[in-house]
Amino acid sequence: MSKTTKEQSATEKDKLSQSEQHYFTSYDHFGIHEEMLQDTVRTLSYRNAIVQNKDMFKDKIVLDVGCGTGILSMFAAKNGAKHVIGVDMSSIIEMAQKIVDINGFSDKITLLRGKLEDIVLPYQKVDIIVSEWMGYFLLYESMLDTVLYARDRYLAPGGLIFPDKCSIHLAGLEDSEYKHQKLDYWQDVYGFDYTPFIPLVMKEPIVDTVESSLINTTRTKIIDFDLNTVTLEDLKFNVPFKLQAKRQDTINGLIAWFDNVFPAPKGQKPIEFSTGPYAAYTHWKQTVFYLEDDLECEKGDILEGTLFCAPNGKNNRDLDVKIKYDFKAGGVDGKERSVKNENTYLMH
Amino acid sequence: MSKTTKEQSATEKDKLSQSEQHYFTSYDHFGIHEEMLQDTVRTLSYRNAIVQNKDMFKDKIVLDVGCGTGILSMFAAKNGAKHVIGVDMSSIIEMAQKIVDINGFSDKITLLRGKLEDIVLPYQKVDIIVSEWMGYFLLYESMLDTVLYARDRYLAPGGLIFPDKCSIHLAGLEDSEYKHQKLDYWQDVYGFDYTPFIPLVMKEPIVDTVESSLINTTRTKIIDFDLNTVTLEDLKFNVPFKLQAKRQDTINGLIAWFDNVFPAPKGQKPIEFSTGPYAAYTHWKQTVFYLEDDLECEKGDILEGTLFCAPNGKNNRDLDVKIKYDFKAGGVDGKERSVKNENTYLMH
Repeated sequence: MSKTTKEQSATEKDKLSQSEQHYFTSYDHFGIHEEMLQDTVRTLSYRNAIVQNKDMFKDKIVLDVGCGTGILSMFAAKNGAKHVIGVDMSSIIEMAQKIVDINGFSDKITLLRGKLEDIVLPYQKVDIIVSEWMGYFLLYESMLDTVLYARDRYLAPGGLIFPDKCSIHLAGLEDSEYKHQKLDYWQDVYGFDYTPFIPLVMKEPIVDTVESSLINTTRTKIIDFDLNTVTLEDLKFNVPFKLQAKRQDTINGLIAWFDNVFPAPKGQKPIEFSTGPYAAYTHWKQTVFYLEDDLECEKGDILEGTLFCAPNGKNNRDLDVKIKYDFKAGGVDGKERSVKNENTYLMH
Repeated sequence: MSKTTKEQSATEKDKLSQSEQHYFTSYDHFGIHEEMLQDTVRTLSYRNAIVQNKDMFKDKIVLDVGCGTGILSMFAAKNGAKHVIGVDMSSIIEMAQKIVDINGFSDKITLLRGKLEDIVLPYQKVDIIVSEWMGYFLLYESMLDTVLYARDRYLAPGGLIFPDKCSIHLAGLEDSEYKHQKLDYWQDVYGFDYTPFIPLVMKEPIVDTVESSLINTTRTKIIDFDLNTVTLEDLKFNVPFKLQAKRQDTINGLIAWFDNVFPAPKGQKPIEFSTGPYAAYTHWKQTVFYLEDDLECEKGDILEGTLFCAPNGKNNRDLDVKIKYDFKAGGVDGKERSVKNENTYLMH
């Protein structure tokens, strides 16, 4: 990073709140951009969606929210956009400018550094918004709030958002070995009792790739977001779920992931990609919520409940998640049991 | 984390500078403590050193700088200390208090939250300082400045510091495949020229474990720190090094690591541990500095130069490193060549 960039960065930072600074600073490392670019499922899905919609991009004004290194802006410019505005809070935008320049897009792409909410765009309205705003569990440290601001403030009537449909999915899994290893560790730490750590471990969802063979229930979509209409209020939700055991096993966690769908020309199958355990690896991996109970199940047993999710009151980049569940066993073997519980989590 | 802790944390944070906040917040996650505790080389070295010095700890006042979950405080208390004061800025200290209590050390260990520099200790002087303050490359995000403050302000004459001797070591390595994969990636990113990223990649040292078989030069100790006498000014240094190629190969990076030695009773071999590539894994791994040149060497060729290291002027938790080198080939094959260069790095 050049000295100039660093100095500008210091000035910008003074305007930002503490949690914004943290978020912002973490983007100064190129490593995260390397990881995102090298996530080919992610990046090629955006490219394929833009190429598929070439006719829609032709001569259009495009806004890239959180443009990072400018890759989506360049996809849009290369595929016919009249002009692309890329906005990012991070100093990475200085690198993006160099890349846009050496790739010959200086006239087609304008990059602006800052909070979109504070910036004056050179257009009153844009025809298309592209954004890779998704965080872990879709909503953790996501930029969706900024995308919705951009939509409401700048998107022309009938304009498109890439992607525009996202959904969160849930399934049960058996992960006894790792779960118990992770929890039992605290029983005896160099001869000391560290068990007060166990509730903390339980409270923190785990972001990791999960073998689909560990999944032992049906899967279910718990929520759909249509980016054309969703509001900030919709990002706080409490939704029911119902899962059915697929085999005799133990359910001791829930796994969540999200899928994304791009707009498609009429009559064509839309480009979409999944971050789930049944799809190819993405850097979002999956999110696992351990349950306090180890639920011994027979095929057909029902695990139902509700999943509550909302930004944390103290730090709105953190996510509160509450999973209430009611497990009903014995549908098959006749030994009826019911386990009810409520577990709370904090993604931070 | 209990609500109370979070609230206290918010108040504490207001007093801290931006970089302190970032550092501080990252310790709120239990994951880092899990990693440090599970680093048995680290933790058992401290335990062994305390056990070996049981006679020295008997009835002594001990200060644990950056006590984290309190493990070192408990080692000291269990091995005869009269009283231990543990100090930490992070909310982890609330967990430490619970652990100290359930392990029966409430009377022996006093935990205080805050910056050591701002806190009034219940003792004018302490007999022993224990601290696990080391960062990557020893000095990156280290707490050494606080340990030195503690020494100067609180350590009784003749008092001990655990550990009290640290040294940084250097060697050359061949890492062509990974280096070129990492650099070449930016040549063609989805059809775009991303080469402006290459200088950034080069500038960022890599923290990773390195196979000792990749090391192709002699190794050398570049600096020694005696914690009994070292001053803050000594942490900014420019030291010479001289390495000799051990085989026909390519030197394209330097690998650095650090070793630590604890005080020992007279006549006994001190407990020590290394974070180097010839020793068992530690969570500090090693630090690799890629060189701009790929230096083709024959056995006996000399790579000499200087390594400069200092806290970054803008953010004193960041480290500036500058490696100046002069490679002299042809000592053996007669085709004399010399490559001189100066590479700068930023650990951030």
